[in-house]
Amino acid sequence: MGTPLPITIEHTDGNARAGTITTPRGSLTTPVFMPVGTRGAVKTLDTGDMEALGTQIMLGNTYHLMERPGADVIESLGGLHGFLNWDGHLLTDSGGFQIFSLKPKISEDGATFKSIYDGATQHLTPERAVKVQEQLGADIAMILDVVPALPAEPEVVREFMERTLRWAERNRAAHTHRTQAQFGIVQGGVDVDLRAESAARTVEIGFDGYAVGGLSVGESRDQMVPALAAATAELPTDRPRYFMGLGDPIGLVEAVNNGIDMFDCVLPTRLARHGTALTSAGRLNLKRAEFERDDGPIDPNFEHPLSSRYSRGYLRHLLKAGEPTAGRILSLHNLAWLADLTDRMRAAIVAGTFQELRAEIHATWSQ
Amino acid sequence: MGTPLPITIEHTDGNARAGTITTPRGSLTTPVFMPVGTRGAVKTLDTGDMEALGTQIMLGNTYHLMERPGADVIESLGGLHGFLNWDGHLLTDSGGFQIFSLKPKISEDGATFKSIYDGATQHLTPERAVKVQEQLGADIAMILDVVPALPAEPEVVREFMERTLRWAERNRAAHTHRTQAQFGIVQGGVDVDLRAESAARTVEIGFDGYAVGGLSVGESRDQMVPALAAATAELPTDRPRYFMGLGDPIGLVEAVNNGIDMFDCVLPTRLARHGTALTSAGRLNLKRAEFERDDGPIDPNFEHPLSSRYSRGYLRHLLKAGEPTAGRILSLHNLAWLADLTDRMRAAIVAGTFQELRAEIHATWSQ
Repeated sequence: MGTPLPITIEHTDGNARAGTITTPRGSLTTPVFMPVGTRGAVKTLDTGDMEALGTQIMLGNTYHLMERPGADVIESLGGLHGFLNWDGHLLTDSGGFQIFSLKPKISEDGATFKSIYDGATQHLTPERAVKVQEQLGADIAMILDVVPALPAEPEVVREFMERTLRWAERNRAAHTHRTQAQFGIVQGGVDVDLRAESAARTVEIGFDGYAVGGLSVGESRDQMVPALAAATAELPTDRPRYFMGLGDPIGLVEAVNNGIDMFDCVLPTRLARHGTALTSAGRLNLKRAEFERDDGPIDPNFEHPLSSRYSRGYLRHLLKAGEPTAGRILSLHNLAWLADLTDRMRAAIVAGTFQELRAEIHATWSQ
Repeated sequence: MGTPLPITIEHTDGNARAGTITTPRGSLTTPVFMPVGTRGAVKTLDTGDMEALGTQIMLGNTYHLMERPGADVIESLGGLHGFLNWDGHLLTDSGGFQIFSLKPKISEDGATFKSIYDGATQHLTPERAVKVQEQLGADIAMILDVVPALPAEPEVVREFMERTLRWAERNRAAHTHRTQAQFGIVQGGVDVDLRAESAARTVEIGFDGYAVGGLSVGESRDQMVPALAAATAELPTDRPRYFMGLGDPIGLVEAVNNGIDMFDCVLPTRLARHGTALTSAGRLNLKRAEFERDDGPIDPNFEHPLSSRYSRGYLRHLLKAGEPTAGRILSLHNLAWLADLTDRMRAAIVAGTFQELRAEIHATWSQ
């Protein structure tokens, strides 16, 4: 089951794709960055802000939402769309990534762990992850997978990959939602052969879209890129591809350079709340004393009505004073800046100049 | 010196006034509630939000801003208007109210106290309070006064009143800003004779507008109203009158009923951050369990595009989860609701139905 999620590829430049994903709700242009509303809101922002940013799709975290307020509460309030009063697209993860940071006991049936909220023992199976996400009712749901902590021995990586594949079949069989797409997840660590095998066998099961999981978790870029390339080479061209948990500019251009369409990360908004802006000159820590009397905007090369009206001096003051407004303005800026980067990637793919943009981002962000 | 700040009274209903204050920057309709941006921002909101709320005038706290980032920094960034990127009106207090909570040593010259930021010994005189506010450059500045903690012995109240009057002359003499109005402050505790004397002698010195200070600090309403009435009876009708530190609905209608035009308070936004909404049914604590699955708006009788799209159930969840977005949405709601209350007061004064509105507010909020 699941709703097929076709992507029309309008332009390619090497392996980089500019496309349009069509869903029952509407369409999404790619590449697309998905801001993360972990507990039902992007921190410091509201749904009106996300609309003002032109956000196409947001992500919600199933683990947190199933704990608080509970999937049945969200379902009774109109699902996640009604809960947030959000007409745009939504994607929910499966809860797996949060759970695996809780050191669960994993059996063939599922994962057993203690709630971070009340310490109660919880058990999450692929079937329950599907059911909970159907209650949340996002446009795209993710399968429950198992992710080894890297680095790991080859046999451990294979074991996790094989279990993810067995669980993938159960996830797929359990999915009954009529208008929700379901994405499979490719595992395999940084082993290119395992990545290729995992991708091919996940495609064999057949999902509405495909994610690459378990990367950008501490491995080097020289390990990440070949593993990613090995995975995307096996994925169908007419389905969306999503790199989970990626939000740094170099990571984004490398992912797009290897055929990825979608990404998400809490990094841009977390950095914002700690006073760091993404700019055309790289990361800018606005708490630095040199900005005390700086009346210039956050990024002189990026204008946005929601954020560039505020001076660096004003933002430095708000940050030093601990005013929550600082995190808000910088969250708006960082999300707008990343949306602009995806727009620029799309335009470069269309113009056949993606490698120039990629080189520019490397030159700026490798420093 | 100072810029005369005429108020045109368009309608009265008893002592209640509906007017328009004209400043070099433009005009303000009254009654008007002034949201407080203590450290240069209304907590959780930005200047764009204040514009979306239709806020006419905001307040900044001189004590906090002179400590961080410093009046010279703000002056170099275009004064408080440039610092906030705010074209609307601004008022700064004198710093006195914050300082008097720091248990200062008060001499005839000024107040000596320890900074809450770094413990350094600071000395604030009327002349310095004027100078700092001129650097901040708000449209309206307040004199530095001395406020006795109530209840206090009559001789203490008189002593503070007399010193405030002596300081008022020094404040007035020090003021040189060409487009900034300066308001005197009436003291006198809850003693009606002292209030009348303080008001008359403050008017004799001559200011561009007049504030009533040192009330709504814990005294009963039966003490507050006569003291207020005694003060406003002595104030000229063609100058604005400002009740400092007032933000509860009954307080607002009582102040307007006694001829007040302006008020400010951190209460509406502080309540918001703690989960309490101002509504047509009184205070509503949205953390209560009964709201878990409530899909209704915060106040069914008050629609506002910035806040009423969110359900009580959603807000309860965000509050329980500690999401800063909850404080943001409720701050928007509470400020919009209070602005609406001032609009309703103005309309009632024009229609001659102010006593009906006053009775309604008492009936709702006395519970």
